[in-house]
Amino acid sequence: MTASATGAQTSDTHKQAARAWFEELRDRICAEFEKIEDEYDGPLAHLPAGRFTRKPWTRPDAADANDGGVISAMRGRVFEKIAVMTSTNLNGTFSSEMAKTIPGAAANPSFWSSSISLVAHMQNPHVPAVHMNTRHFIAAETWWFGGGTDLTPMFPAEEDAAEFHAALKCACDAHGADYYARFKKWCDEYFFLPHRGEPRGAGGIFYDHLNSGSWAEDFAFTRDVGLAFLTVYPHIVRQRMRQPWTDEDRAHQLTRRGRYVEFNLLYDRGTQFGLKTGGNVEAILMSMPPEARWP
Amino acid sequence: MTASATGAQTSDTHKQAARAWFEELRDRICAEFEKIEDEYDGPLAHLPAGRFTRKPWTRPDAADANDGGVISAMRGRVFEKIAVMTSTNLNGTFSSEMAKTIPGAAANPSFWSSSISLVAHMQNPHVPAVHMNTRHFIAAETWWFGGGTDLTPMFPAEEDAAEFHAALKCACDAHGADYYARFKKWCDEYFFLPHRGEPRGAGGIFYDHLNSGSWAEDFAFTRDVGLAFLTVYPHIVRQRMRQPWTDEDRAHQLTRRGRYVEFNLLYDRGTQFGLKTGGNVEAILMSMPPEARWP
Repeated sequence: MTASATGAQTSDTHKQAARAWFEELRDRICAEFEKIEDEYDGPLAHLPAGRFTRKPWTRPDAADANDGGVISAMRGRVFEKIAVMTSTNLNGTFSSEMAKTIPGAAANPSFWSSSISLVAHMQNPHVPAVHMNTRHFIAAETWWFGGGTDLTPMFPAEEDAAEFHAALKCACDAHGADYYARFKKWCDEYFFLPHRGEPRGAGGIFYDHLNSGSWAEDFAFTRDVGLAFLTVYPHIVRQRMRQPWTDEDRAHQLTRRGRYVEFNLLYDRGTQFGLKTGGNVEAILMSMPPEARWP
Repeated sequence: MTASATGAQTSDTHKQAARAWFEELRDRICAEFEKIEDEYDGPLAHLPAGRFTRKPWTRPDAADANDGGVISAMRGRVFEKIAVMTSTNLNGTFSSEMAKTIPGAAANPSFWSSSISLVAHMQNPHVPAVHMNTRHFIAAETWWFGGGTDLTPMFPAEEDAAEFHAALKCACDAHGADYYARFKKWCDEYFFLPHRGEPRGAGGIFYDHLNSGSWAEDFAFTRDVGLAFLTVYPHIVRQRMRQPWTDEDRAHQLTRRGRYVEFNLLYDRGTQFGLKTGGNVEAILMSMPPEARWP
């Protein structure tokens, strides 16, 4: 099923539904994370509970205030720096290089896209960092969903990784028998630092160009990935956040964050795509850790 | 004049002379910086004076212990993290992409190279960071010198930038009437962060593929660039290093260092070239700051 086959009206409905979901998910994630900030009573609890602030932006060439995004950022006592970005591109154009890989894009490289993306860097070195992103693209002759989420513990913690993967497997299994195995493998391959010979963390799932033929089904899967994240990550945070840490633990965390920086700037396609397609630099680089070390 | 035209024996003499110079310059720089550590009596002078430690490495496929390099690194009370890398590649091979841009390399992509490269990150936010690199390449049918040095003040300081540029202009003027203007412009263009719309710092000079036809002349210029650095940077350090700083100055310094990280990982050709040609990862990433922030 192509976008054009569905008709312009249906396409508009899809755009509205996808965008509304990404924004709803953003609201629910922000509310849950603020709740964690409020209920926190561990180390650094003398600091004020964090609150998200929102900063909207529009593209320089936008004809419409809806053509842009919102940076929702919080610096808290549990979440040292968390940014949730929602953005919509009403009039995107694929680069000629990208257009070659997308059916119909050579003739018509225009696209619509909408997404949610977040990276959380935590105060407590025993609480894993996390990344989650889901997105919907509608091109001239095709559409797809993509995204995923991956966990980056600073210290190996089997039980956290097992819980995270179990939640994602559950979301995957409801939509495709092979989804979890395929998307876990894709994540392991993608979030890997070749120059270090190291995985970025404990993995998760990664998928792209998902178009099963049923828009409703692929949208439902993408929603379930977001909901799985919304359940499992706050649970891991609450399990770990009161654990005390030493200066050595913190130094280790800052060094591991250096690896996160290396991945994002050397390899991350979202970062490279964003910086090369005139994305909002502040929004793209909000994924950078508040502090990192290369000792 | 091509490498083959000079004959194999001359080429060996050139290789020995270039390598010996890069290693001599390394020794002189390390000695001068240790002297600064010793004579220091400003803030943090209660810390022990830093000393360089040397770590040799060889390429995984090396037939010869000379095929590799040495990381000379110091963590001191003036120099928070300084690494001076010397390296020699006895049996390099240009990638097919690079070979296209080098005369004769399509037929024979092998090369010999030797270089010195350093980045200094300073404790005192009022002392500028600095980068210096000079290198010599000998390919099948051509040879060239390249390099340069650029200053990265954390706070604008006209007098430091003026002194740095005056020293480089002097070295340039002795070798080519247009060198300073050309190489300063090249530096300004190269050390620029397009996504930020910002220069990396106060500039300096940058040159590459320099082959005037006289090996002796181009080698002399490259030596003079190294000597200009060895004179001017220690003088700037000594002028600034006792200036007191506040926590706000330090926070600003760490944020500016984030820009340095962005440049090195997103744009720096040496970093990208090194990581893609199986260079020593530890040596390449020794240019990263000890600590950086993205607040």
